[in-house]
Amino acid sequence: MLKTIDLNSDLGESFGQWSMGDDAAILKLVSSANVACGFHAGSPAGMLETLKAAKAQGVTVGAHVAYPDLVGFGRRNMDIASDELTADVIYQIGALQGLARAAGTEVRYVKPHGALYNTIAYNERQALAVIDGILAVDPNLPLVGLAGSPVLQWAQQKGLKTISEAFADRAYHADGTLVSRREAGSVLHDAQQVAERMLQLITEGGVSSIEGKFTPIQAESICVHGDSPGAIAMAHQIRTLLEAQGIAIRSFISQA
Amino acid sequence: MLKTIDLNSDLGESFGQWSMGDDAAILKLVSSANVACGFHAGSPAGMLETLKAAKAQGVTVGAHVAYPDLVGFGRRNMDIASDELTADVIYQIGALQGLARAAGTEVRYVKPHGALYNTIAYNERQALAVIDGILAVDPNLPLVGLAGSPVLQWAQQKGLKTISEAFADRAYHADGTLVSRREAGSVLHDAQQVAERMLQLITEGGVSSIEGKFTPIQAESICVHGDSPGAIAMAHQIRTLLEAQGIAIRSFISQA
Amino acid sequence: MLKTIDLNSDLGESFGQWSMGDDAAILKLVSSANVACGFHAGSPAGMLETLKAAKAQGVTVGAHVAYPDLVGFGRRNMDIASDELTADVIYQIGALQGLARAAGTEVRYVKPHGALYNTIAYNERQALAVIDGILAVDPNLPLVGLAGSPVLQWAQQKGLKTISEAFADRAYHADGTLVSRREAGSVLHDAQQVAERMLQLITEGGVSSIEGKFTPIQAESICVHGDSPGAIAMAHQIRTLLEAQGIAIRSFISQA
Amino acid sequence: MLKTIDLNSDLGESFGQWSMGDDAAILKLVSSANVACGFHAGSPAGMLETLKAAKAQGVTVGAHVAYPDLVGFGRRNMDIASDELTADVIYQIGALQGLARAAGTEVRYVKPHGALYNTIAYNERQALAVIDGILAVDPNLPLVGLAGSPVLQWAQQKGLKTISEAFADRAYHADGTLVSRREAGSVLHDAQQVAERMLQLITEGGVSSIEGKFTPIQAESICVHGDSPGAIAMAHQIRTLLEAQGIAIRSFISQA
Repeated sequence: MLKTIDLNSDLGESFGQWSMGDDAAILKLVSSANVACGFHAGSPAGMLETLKAAKAQGVTVGAHVAYPDLVGFGRRNMDIASDELTADVIYQIGALQGLARAAGTEVRYVKPHGALYNTIAYNERQALAVIDGILAVDPNLPLVGLAGSPVLQWAQQKGLKTISEAFADRAYHADGTLVSRREAGSVLHDAQQVAERMLQLITEGGVSSIEGKFTPIQAESICVHGDSPGAIAMAHQIRTLLEAQGIAIRSFISQA
Repeated sequence: MLKTIDLNSDLGESFGQWSMGDDAAILKLVSSANVACGFHAGSPAGMLETLKAAKAQGVTVGAHVAYPDLVGFGRRNMDIASDELTADVIYQIGALQGLARAAGTEVRYVKPHGALYNTIAYNERQALAVIDGILAVDPNLPLVGLAGSPVLQWAQQKGLKTISEAFADRAYHADGTLVSRREAGSVLHDAQQVAERMLQLITEGGVSSIEGKFTPIQAESICVHGDSPGAIAMAHQIRTLLEAQGIAIRSFISQA
Repeated sequence: MLKTIDLNSDLGESFGQWSMGDDAAILKLVSSANVACGFHAGSPAGMLETLKAAKAQGVTVGAHVAYPDLVGFGRRNMDIASDELTADVIYQIGALQGLARAAGTEVRYVKPHGALYNTIAYNERQALAVIDGILAVDPNLPLVGLAGSPVLQWAQQKGLKTISEAFADRAYHADGTLVSRREAGSVLHDAQQVAERMLQLITEGGVSSIEGKFTPIQAESICVHGDSPGAIAMAHQIRTLLEAQGIAIRSFISQA
Repeated sequence: MLKTIDLNSDLGESFGQWSMGDDAAILKLVSSANVACGFHAGSPAGMLETLKAAKAQGVTVGAHVAYPDLVGFGRRNMDIASDELTADVIYQIGALQGLARAAGTEVRYVKPHGALYNTIAYNERQALAVIDGILAVDPNLPLVGLAGSPVLQWAQQKGLKTISEAFADRAYHADGTLVSRREAGSVLHDAQQVAERMLQLITEGGVSSIEGKFTPIQAESICVHGDSPGAIAMAHQIRTLLEAQGIAIRSFISQA
């Protein structure tokens, strides 16, 4: 039986004078911080501050690489050429590595953000471009990807370690795919229900699908949000329930 | 007598579909390439291509860090807060380090670009912010600065190595400062004359000032341009004359 | 005796997913909205929404033009060439005019933002560049500038109408200049005190300076903030007190 | 028989220090200038210069609106929300209108650029978003779109005038669609052949398709390029041949 789980969240998403999320609060609850790299969010001074806070809190840092789309927050699909996407990934990882070094910590994994995350889960061309970028800058960085999606196999075939991820507040279909945000019931709002689902995920290896049937999901990390007081309360609920059941919240990196 | 000199030039200054400079041509003439890091110029795919070409040509790579001002090409003074400038410098160095690694090479020095270069030559607050950025990301990276300007001492006092730089095509005042571009005669256009001045710089330790008097300039690197056919011809002339006089063109890094 | 006053505030300062300020709340309190034009803040969809809200509320709209510096929120001085600044001002006014037309309203004045506002108050070269931009796009648009500063005369000499502005929450020196934000006591936080100062400004034509002496300030508009609950409460206090004293809050445009 | 035709070309595509295209040369050959609006290319000072040159040359000006993607030059498909796209279109048209006014001319039509042009030719959701933007800012501005594509009907149904456009240097399929750039033979390089095809287009109402069969194309404007000496020579050849055959090169606007 799995006794530890990683909780990850998106951080460093402020930009200049605009703030987003409560990094200090969520850092107390998660074991891994996906830090924005400047393409969808994150300006250098704010990123550095977030990295220092992650270091102080003992939270593992990953590069939250994205499409170059600040105004769209990286949430809009882009049909970007492979060589450009590869170089964009390298650039972002490198930039975060520099800032992480300055903060006394280091980048330990890569998690694509937003539209890029969703696209590479199933689009092989863009997935390979991202994988090539990681391989070029540091082949030891694992890739975090959607549990059950082909990107994990594509990455493994290229020699990358992978971390499969589940989303705490999202409904799943019986085939293990996420229910689209455009459909009713795709996002779960009841913190207690979500916490119990995550306990079920860890102890039973899956959750109830939106169609009612149990769907197996093999996840090494659970994504929680920190961008609203409600989100932080939900993350707190999840952590509290899991720990009460004897499950340790620990980075997949330190689990090795 | 000094038998080697470094020639450096600005590269990687294309941006997306816009090209600037003939990187392939100038890489055959210089020993050091100041590669744009995305803030005044340089998009990741183009930067990576330039880095691969520098690697293939055996040219040493430096980070050409700048103010965040694409539309102004980093040529406009900005009154930027120290912590923001420090983080901007770290971010840019890190990004270039990532791309350099992907290209099989590495970043060996830092040279601020444009308005940032000119400002930190004499402005202690911004100079210290840049120096702090370099120290935070890698204290072994030397800073290239204007020969005779105080930034070199400020950097040394903080423990950084420094490289003093002269400009091949610029006129100097008798006190060793550059003649402002706004003044007549500030930029030299005769390639033969410029080459001979650089020979004088190396063999006599200075050049004739615009006022006529000899002005001593202690330079470990000479900046040449590659952004026009005329500029490349001038760089070629300088290299040819220096080598004919037994002076080796070699990176200050490999001279160590 | 002056029986009306304009209250203006900065709006439309969100950018993509990042929100800033409570535009709906402040629109109920002011008569003029300085709407960001995309250079320091403001993305088109959000700007359009703000313009529609201003239209619905009957609030006059002005173009809040700025330096091209998103990450710095237009708060960092830039040494920008005159022709570039002129074109930047035209571009921003035009963009806002397009969106205003789509919202059923129109741009009625221009107020430079942040560092540009402060710079042109006293820097004639940049002031003339801004003035030239306004003249080129619509010579009937008045320029809002710091009460007592030379920019107002420079604009008038070029044929522009001007609106002199006071800042509700800022301390003034006896010579009528603003106390720098870097000095203690420069920003006033007591809403009741601020409201009474603004009443004094209108009825007595000046306020008590930080040195104690009364300083005359001739202001046709008062700037209030909407970027925090406290700021909105202060704006509410000002409006309530002024109206209780029989002073109508009305745009300087509709006062004509 | 049609005795006049419009030739249009993309202009104002420089950005800051990066130049692209020879606007002065192509302005002597075309009747309509699609001027970049800052989203894929074009910085305000350069756009203003191009607009002044178009005015001096008597060339009609249109807004070359694009996705917000400078680094990708607007050539990458983006899955952008309709309200964002509508507002982006309004913003760009407005900005160009402001600069056009400053240049003593005005924006007379709208032509989407690059990926946006190709997408809205067939994607109704994005097409309607663009059409809504034009309607909101000025319903009298015609939309230039791909000859034979549904966007022209969608625009007409919404009350917009439309201009159907052919591409001088592109091969067509027998069904009137463009041969994809990824296929061999999609781009024609022989200036004489291209000129003769354009004569055929005007006199016979169509061209030979890549499959050999004549394909009818009803075009009111022909797009030519100005971004290389070869492109300008081709545009010159087309204009010369058409004029020699008694066909006047005239803006579709002035033809009304």
